[in-house]
Amino acid sequence: MSIHIAVDCMGGDHGPAVTVPAAGAFLKNHPDARVVLVGQEAEMTSLLEKLPDDTRARIQVRHTAEVVGMDEAPAMALKNKKDSSMRVAINLVKTGEAAACISAGNTGALMATARFVLKMLPGIDRPAICAVMPTMRGQVYMLDLGANIDCSADHLVQFGIMGSVLVSALEHREAPNVGLLNIGEEAIKGTSLVKEAAAGLKESGVNFSGNIEGDGIFKGEADVVVCDGFVGNVSLKTAEGLAQMMSTTLREEFGRGLLSRLSALLALPVLRRFKRRLDHRAFNGAILIGLRGVTIKSHGSADVFGFEQAIARAYETVSSDVLQRISERLHELHRDVLQPRVKQQANG
Amino acid sequence: MSIHIAVDCMGGDHGPAVTVPAAGAFLKNHPDARVVLVGQEAEMTSLLEKLPDDTRARIQVRHTAEVVGMDEAPAMALKNKKDSSMRVAINLVKTGEAAACISAGNTGALMATARFVLKMLPGIDRPAICAVMPTMRGQVYMLDLGANIDCSADHLVQFGIMGSVLVSALEHREAPNVGLLNIGEEAIKGTSLVKEAAAGLKESGVNFSGNIEGDGIFKGEADVVVCDGFVGNVSLKTAEGLAQMMSTTLREEFGRGLLSRLSALLALPVLRRFKRRLDHRAFNGAILIGLRGVTIKSHGSADVFGFEQAIARAYETVSSDVLQRISERLHELHRDVLQPRVKQQANG
Repeated sequence: MSIHIAVDCMGGDHGPAVTVPAAGAFLKNHPDARVVLVGQEAEMTSLLEKLPDDTRARIQVRHTAEVVGMDEAPAMALKNKKDSSMRVAINLVKTGEAAACISAGNTGALMATARFVLKMLPGIDRPAICAVMPTMRGQVYMLDLGANIDCSADHLVQFGIMGSVLVSALEHREAPNVGLLNIGEEAIKGTSLVKEAAAGLKESGVNFSGNIEGDGIFKGEADVVVCDGFVGNVSLKTAEGLAQMMSTTLREEFGRGLLSRLSALLALPVLRRFKRRLDHRAFNGAILIGLRGVTIKSHGSADVFGFEQAIARAYETVSSDVLQRISERLHELHRDVLQPRVKQQANG
Repeated sequence: MSIHIAVDCMGGDHGPAVTVPAAGAFLKNHPDARVVLVGQEAEMTSLLEKLPDDTRARIQVRHTAEVVGMDEAPAMALKNKKDSSMRVAINLVKTGEAAACISAGNTGALMATARFVLKMLPGIDRPAICAVMPTMRGQVYMLDLGANIDCSADHLVQFGIMGSVLVSALEHREAPNVGLLNIGEEAIKGTSLVKEAAAGLKESGVNFSGNIEGDGIFKGEADVVVCDGFVGNVSLKTAEGLAQMMSTTLREEFGRGLLSRLSALLALPVLRRFKRRLDHRAFNGAILIGLRGVTIKSHGSADVFGFEQAIARAYETVSSDVLQRISERLHELHRDVLQPRVKQQANG
């Protein structure tokens, strides 16, 4: 059976000019997949005509009149934009017409709408944004990156469990390391919230490897990094800003004078390999985890290659059966760890 | 009159092997400065003999028997290590024998001891760690970077005022831009703490430019970035980790095969300029601000060049009269903004 992905065509900085060709590229690389493009049909037509016939045959267009603005308040989008490309794409997951949806639109609106339409997995209080980043040893999954700015210790523990199951499923790892983002590796460090979360993670059944500091993210000290959405968002964006500054500085220096430009020409294969290894576009596509349906958030500024990767992540999340596995793990945890503890406390 | 700097010779990963030659290099570049080296005299002797006579003439050695361990609990160091090189260096500032002190040792112990010995400036509740970082447009001062993990909105406002006066004094800028680190630029974003701090900064008399996101730090969107110590520490270390990963990856790719190594040779002047522009060692030396005395924290792993820059920052902080200016600004603020507001509230 083929996997259907619903794509919000209108979201992001570039809209259909990026999302339509990206869907085409994705379908070319995934012969068993199908895509439902949701958005303003008139804007898609000429872009669809450019795709090869066998790709276009696996695309269905669902016309919608409305679009959620990038700066629109989530609550307003939820209330007033019931025929928006974003809302309809999420609805398709709810009705089962699509196995996953993806949008490069307004993060807050996507989160609020997906939560309202799809609801939470049992045992999970809040969705989290989970993204993948390159490290010195491979890659790391980090959550939450901005969905929850005020978290309880329990929420952080839930993020750890979800992240652990996600990496197990997607990377075929038995017991991924889960690290807790903190300002020191010692257990005495950090806020009371973080200390409580550490205690909870120890008992949660995940392979908890303790605190890690900001630099540990890129050293690859953990497979999963857990943090609240405020800290996670600042950390992610700090990294984005620094990467951009370093790349710009390198480009500037290679452009300074004839000799530098000549050496850049000779170093081109090296610089291309460097760029490819750390290309943030290859890591595009954050998972909104904790919902009863796969929802992927693409970076708003993603180009065709980047958006294609995000659609591919939706596909892999579905084909690895991530939601089912998280539900089972939460059920086991409830049965084996949490309920016995409550009983013990009642008896003790 | 010459400026005396007290150096904790024993702190950091390398101790006197770094701190003594760094003091020598600093004195060479600052003919009117003097240094008091505090630590175990026997470990310094042979290192001192390597310095030129005119430099050595401006060095005084203060022998101490104890050393604060890098992982020692701050409260224990404060209680038990009264003859440590760190404590004695701070004491020299208290007695006026030195105008500033510097240590690459245990941050928590340095903070606790400096606060206990030197006390806070009037109107300031807590010290903050303030470091300088390169940006696309120049440099940025960021605070707090780990001294305070639970901050009130008032503390963040105090950090903004101190940072603003610091940049005024050190960079000769009239009204530096102060930005508040947040997860969105819009005023509605962020925790209630951050929103309250934004309101306070607006009324504080600093040139408050609103919220900035993590990537804004390196885009140079503000001259001063204010955040709590948990978020600031994670952000700083995230940046350190990413910079290290990018440098390592670049080096690896330039080392891959004969042609790459050849192109590296030709690109050497470019790569050197790139490295120099972003060299973290040039930015070494964080100011522990808010204390009644100049205390500088060097990175524990600093090399001779890096530690020299940190001593130079101590010197500049003293010669720019930063503490006096912060005290005056706080006095004015109290007189012109805070007191009238209290009166108004009493009358209103």
